[in-house]
Amino acid sequence: MGKEEEDAWVVMKTARAPSNIAVIKYWGKRDEKLILPINSSISVTLDPEHLSATTTVAASPAFERDRLWLNGKEVSVEGERYRNCLREMRARATDVVIESSGKVITKEVWSTLHIHIASENNFPTAAGLASSAAGFACLVYSLAQLMNVKEKYEGELTAIARLGSGSACRSLYGGFVKWNMGQEADGKDSIATQLAEQSHWEDLVIIIAVVSSRQKETSSTSGMQESVKTSPLLKYRAEEMVPKRIGQMEKAIKSMDFAEFARITCADSNQFHATCLDTSPPIFYLNDSSRRLIGLVERWNRHAGEPQVAYTFDAGPNAVMFAKNKEVAVQLLKRLLYQFPPSAEADLSRYVLGDQSVLKSAGVTSLEDIDSLSAPAEFAGVINLPRIPGEIDYLICTSAGKGASVLDGQIASLLDPATGLLVKNE
Amino acid sequence: MGKEEEDAWVVMKTARAPSNIAVIKYWGKRDEKLILPINSSISVTLDPEHLSATTTVAASPAFERDRLWLNGKEVSVEGERYRNCLREMRARATDVVIESSGKVITKEVWSTLHIHIASENNFPTAAGLASSAAGFACLVYSLAQLMNVKEKYEGELTAIARLGSGSACRSLYGGFVKWNMGQEADGKDSIATQLAEQSHWEDLVIIIAVVSSRQKETSSTSGMQESVKTSPLLKYRAEEMVPKRIGQMEKAIKSMDFAEFARITCADSNQFHATCLDTSPPIFYLNDSSRRLIGLVERWNRHAGEPQVAYTFDAGPNAVMFAKNKEVAVQLLKRLLYQFPPSAEADLSRYVLGDQSVLKSAGVTSLEDIDSLSAPAEFAGVINLPRIPGEIDYLICTSAGKGASVLDGQIASLLDPATGLLVKNE
Repeated sequence: MGKEEEDAWVVMKTARAPSNIAVIKYWGKRDEKLILPINSSISVTLDPEHLSATTTVAASPAFERDRLWLNGKEVSVEGERYRNCLREMRARATDVVIESSGKVITKEVWSTLHIHIASENNFPTAAGLASSAAGFACLVYSLAQLMNVKEKYEGELTAIARLGSGSACRSLYGGFVKWNMGQEADGKDSIATQLAEQSHWEDLVIIIAVVSSRQKETSSTSGMQESVKTSPLLKYRAEEMVPKRIGQMEKAIKSMDFAEFARITCADSNQFHATCLDTSPPIFYLNDSSRRLIGLVERWNRHAGEPQVAYTFDAGPNAVMFAKNKEVAVQLLKRLLYQFPPSAEADLSRYVLGDQSVLKSAGVTSLEDIDSLSAPAEFAGVINLPRIPGEIDYLICTSAGKGASVLDGQIASLLDPATGLLVKNE
Repeated sequence: MGKEEEDAWVVMKTARAPSNIAVIKYWGKRDEKLILPINSSISVTLDPEHLSATTTVAASPAFERDRLWLNGKEVSVEGERYRNCLREMRARATDVVIESSGKVITKEVWSTLHIHIASENNFPTAAGLASSAAGFACLVYSLAQLMNVKEKYEGELTAIARLGSGSACRSLYGGFVKWNMGQEADGKDSIATQLAEQSHWEDLVIIIAVVSSRQKETSSTSGMQESVKTSPLLKYRAEEMVPKRIGQMEKAIKSMDFAEFARITCADSNQFHATCLDTSPPIFYLNDSSRRLIGLVERWNRHAGEPQVAYTFDAGPNAVMFAKNKEVAVQLLKRLLYQFPPSAEADLSRYVLGDQSVLKSAGVTSLEDIDSLSAPAEFAGVINLPRIPGEIDYLICTSAGKGASVLDGQIASLLDPATGLLVKNE
């Protein structure tokens, strides 16, 4: 009985961490195990309201092994990336007092406790929207809360998140974040730092176009391995181009220079995809729909005489677009709805997700409103511009957002506080 | 009457010049006017039976101005490129004896005579198969015959063809041709030289897939201007990559090393398109169909353990594929017909053009035969592989071929020997 009672306690924490989108791209590792990149990168943290992972971590002497549930399904936690994150966090655990009993979980106890993890995204995992970045950032952040881990140096947690997924290190902070490639062999200095809070540049609006794709894509892990091995242009890019662009981008963000921000963002996205094409065999992430999205933005920017919108594409066909301000975002959304109408059977509320205020300002409340949108001025004279309903799966209106944070209360918890097992949602 | 009789003579020559396909790409000029490239290039001359221009040039004291008919339609000859070629050829004209009268056209007379030119391709101009290369090579070659121009140094004619269209310089010779970028400011040393006759490597079979494209493409002239101006990767490619590849390719051709030839050909095509993507705004010549063609070849090569086929794409979506030998070409054609069947209303004889022996060896004599082709081994387990009838417009089976040559007899003549005006074909 005494033993049973002693084993009955479960401690848990729930946190949320955002996804992020790189504006100076990370592509290529110099160390596969420690996930050390061949160049620094810069990202914008996406509003966790729309794109984030929520993770509950729990510990109990009753747990017999580490367990992991992703989006409601139990999966193996034996992967090296999970093991590395758990090992590093356990090694940094400090005393935690159990509220109910006043008992203390010491560092020594932590090293014996098994962990249950449940994580889910508030956006489709398969959409290619950096779910692993949000997921690993959230795992490390929630474990830090659970185990009372204090950073010995600023960014220590980001270096641990990096062991899970390179770009995860950028998801701990909000706003504008830089991942310094670092120099050390152990990766200690390959950490993320915040360049600016999201409130620094509040005008920016982000619209994501999730492209319908039937094509199986090369995973970014194997893709970047192949590029490092075979693309001479990637080596040149990492060594000669990126260092310059990092400096220019930091400056553009600091001074909120949208034209410069747009110029570098688009050029760097295109250059990253150029190095994919320079890989043997070549890797294609952009498809004809991506190309039409780029065309829409480039045409408009040229017509306007200065950049209104910037685009960037990760390892997939989806476009992440930055509009200069809310007014431009409304115009962008109208253009997107004009050229990429939803399919006839679509539901508008499932076609435009996220922040509904952009759609509202566009005056679009029904599919009929989309049908009656008129062609933007710069479309005049453009031939062979297909408007294929359903070419895009859906749009997400969002903005830069805050970093990882604790979710208070039991409501958000993904694990049962009594058993530490997955809460089944009906 | 005396004057009229004197004016009545017309001299004319007809020649044919092939198209060519670069295996080390030309992209970017260091001199726009003289068409001097930023790197050397290497091409394979295509069999003029299947891909060539035929040009008749005529001179007569009765002609009142220079005139030009392209594919049966009169167009302006005032363009700088035509003017440059005509000027350089006139400057090199020597004495020509008129057979019928024994009269001599002296260099001085040549400088006063107007020229009529009629040219047509034996393949669709709009298909993006280097029609301007064949056309300008043919213009210069036929004028050299007409005006009895002798080269003062080897390759002098190629330098004049280059003034019409850069890659035209490579179309004067057969087989395997190198365009040396040259160093001189006047372009005198920016000439083509033959690396090997077509008979040197007779095993090679070429299959061209002409991709249906509704997309308007950036012209190569303006495309390469934009790339030179904005792509840092192009500069690196031209300066650091191409010189190495030129040497490797020369060696591969000399030793008929197909694996090496295929490796460099594919890598260089992809790198050229990578620099297009690195251009601001980005240029896309490859579309989703091009990408599927690349996938077909790469999948097969990987499955076979060594390259069977190489692919290369110019400034458009069409694939030019080199099969290791005839047997492989038959397998390639079967694979192409399997994955890219003609549309239901197609005519097989219009779907597979050129050398019919490959189709014959494949045992395909009807659309039903295509329907009953079985999936190649390496297609097993590949998901989401669309087989869209009509995705490809047509295929051309051909091989490396000879250079420019004179066409004897009146039959081929495109101008009326009496009037020097276009012969109308009904």
